[in-house]
Amino acid sequence: MPSSAEKLFVVIMAGGSGTRFWPLSRSHRPKQLLPFAGGKSLLRATVDRIAPMVPWSRIVVVTVAEVAQAVAAELPELPAANLLVEPVGRDTAACVGWVAWRLATEHAGALMAVLPSDHVIGDAAALRRTLAAGAAAAFAHGALVTLGVRPTRPETGFGYLELGGEVAAIAGQTVRRVVRFIEKPDRERAEAFAASRNHLWNAGMFIWTVAAIERAIRTHLPELAAGLDAMAAAGGDEAARLYAELPRVSIDFGVMEKATDVLALPVDFAWSDVGSWPGLAEVLGAESGVRIGDTLSLDSDGAVLVSDGPLVAAIGVPDLVVVATRDAVLVVPKSQAQRVRELVDRLRDLSRDDVL
Amino acid sequence: MPSSAEKLFVVIMAGGSGTRFWPLSRSHRPKQLLPFAGGKSLLRATVDRIAPMVPWSRIVVVTVAEVAQAVAAELPELPAANLLVEPVGRDTAACVGWVAWRLATEHAGALMAVLPSDHVIGDAAALRRTLAAGAAAAFAHGALVTLGVRPTRPETGFGYLELGGEVAAIAGQTVRRVVRFIEKPDRERAEAFAASRNHLWNAGMFIWTVAAIERAIRTHLPELAAGLDAMAAAGGDEAARLYAELPRVSIDFGVMEKATDVLALPVDFAWSDVGSWPGLAEVLGAESGVRIGDTLSLDSDGAVLVSDGPLVAAIGVPDLVVVATRDAVLVVPKSQAQRVRELVDRLRDLSRDDVL
Repeated sequence: MPSSAEKLFVVIMAGGSGTRFWPLSRSHRPKQLLPFAGGKSLLRATVDRIAPMVPWSRIVVVTVAEVAQAVAAELPELPAANLLVEPVGRDTAACVGWVAWRLATEHAGALMAVLPSDHVIGDAAALRRTLAAGAAAAFAHGALVTLGVRPTRPETGFGYLELGGEVAAIAGQTVRRVVRFIEKPDRERAEAFAASRNHLWNAGMFIWTVAAIERAIRTHLPELAAGLDAMAAAGGDEAARLYAELPRVSIDFGVMEKATDVLALPVDFAWSDVGSWPGLAEVLGAESGVRIGDTLSLDSDGAVLVSDGPLVAAIGVPDLVVVATRDAVLVVPKSQAQRVRELVDRLRDLSRDDVL
Repeated sequence: MPSSAEKLFVVIMAGGSGTRFWPLSRSHRPKQLLPFAGGKSLLRATVDRIAPMVPWSRIVVVTVAEVAQAVAAELPELPAANLLVEPVGRDTAACVGWVAWRLATEHAGALMAVLPSDHVIGDAAALRRTLAAGAAAAFAHGALVTLGVRPTRPETGFGYLELGGEVAAIAGQTVRRVVRFIEKPDRERAEAFAASRNHLWNAGMFIWTVAAIERAIRTHLPELAAGLDAMAAAGGDEAARLYAELPRVSIDFGVMEKATDVLALPVDFAWSDVGSWPGLAEVLGAESGVRIGDTLSLDSDGAVLVSDGPLVAAIGVPDLVVVATRDAVLVVPKSQAQRVRELVDRLRDLSRDDVL
């Protein structure tokens, strides 16, 4: 019997097209391509973290047509066959299922880890240890395994996992049963979760055998399974056409929340989904504020100043986010940074494709 | 005897290189060339205001080498001989004296009005009426005449004129004696001046006969007079070399404050020296804030948003100034806008000539 690590494929989900980092993020340069990981893009940093444990031949990156070229340029070592471009975005269940069906055909008995491409993780070695333990657990139990992050604050912006009993301890890491997935909670519940030892942040990192996820999709999303079967039978352009008809549902909602055989490995390393401009300060550990690119400031400690070209000069604005590119400038208080979406929607209404 | 109007030359001082409008103003594009007059530059608006009363042949523009080309481009109708380029900036007394000495040679008996090129004036017809009355007063009395603006608020950023008795009434306009020039006052004195009928803002607008200003310079600035005499005798490159050695002093401090025969015409029209970014809102009568160029804002009424290229997108910043060009962005609270000078000084220290 082969060890679980030798069968492990790492699937990196790089299809996002977030708008929360406008004007730096654009339709052709989403968040995962922004240089928020010490000069590296988040995508590159994600790949670099797992590269010591799997060869490039077993790294698969899934993206969308709009950014495929930029993704390929960012990862020149990636074999072309391992860059999968969704014909059209159909949310994560379709995406995961598509890859699983392909791996099932080409690599019988494979294990599959699914990782976001746009998160920041503090300790790469710890991530690799947890992935190895998760792979062993997924292999041994045939279960769906998720990595959950121990809450460090009562965050209302994330989903949570509620944990049940301990199932095993693998290489010093505890594997626990997941009782349920919990949607973004209100403040009071978030505080209870953060204080409990039985709740983790749902970080969107999964490991399972291809057989297990295929079984789970057939059970909980039979329509998706039928669509994937039809694609496998059709191939070529017809498969692409069929992809566009797959049900649009997330892997969390469509499978994980319904499955009964879900296990979790708690991880303790620093983790962030870098959800907004002010979130960058936390990620970068920058208490005196963020400075990226050509900036000059007077009395503006705490401000988030980001330039992708022009000099950004700020006076007396410690609570502000300023982001400048050659063709667009954003100014917003840190406390209102989530309104960038609203602004981008407005730009869309105004057909300002030149800056989107 | 010719009427005063037929002898009137209007001298427009366009040598300024203000930094308070950085990053829109640059070393090669000072404030007077910025489009703050309803799309026109302040310089162009200044010339357009007086063009109905004097032919182009009697409009003289004085500037400095750095911006001479841009000034000429802005005023294509101006005869080349009427664009005087200071070999080097030596403050306003040298500049005024230089023009006066030239006019004395070429146009005996000329009158000379001196106007700043970077102010905003609400009522052009009223300005022309006051200039005509001022010319008549200067011609009749041989005095130095200044136009003073009736204060509309207790401004501490301007100098003031203290008025004495009425000397004459010309074409319905009262001419009064100036008792003294007063430097920028503190708040308490500014309030007293604004409440008084005997104080005007010193707006830097003057009218005199060439003979009168020459006499005044010989009396109060004999060193300058000697230098100007030497320049007239030398001519050519030698004159330019001598210009650089003229004493550096303002016409206000060097002559007006010392002269005893100074008259003032009070003017009531809306006037602004547009001293800072927030000052623009007042000038433009824009209570809901300033929007110049490509801007988009949410909940930012009152903000000063100016673009010379990039889209400026602002969310929730009603008290802010944001100015963006292709290569530099300024962000500063309206209340701290005067600190732009400090920022520009810092850029100079850093040798950031690319954005100065």
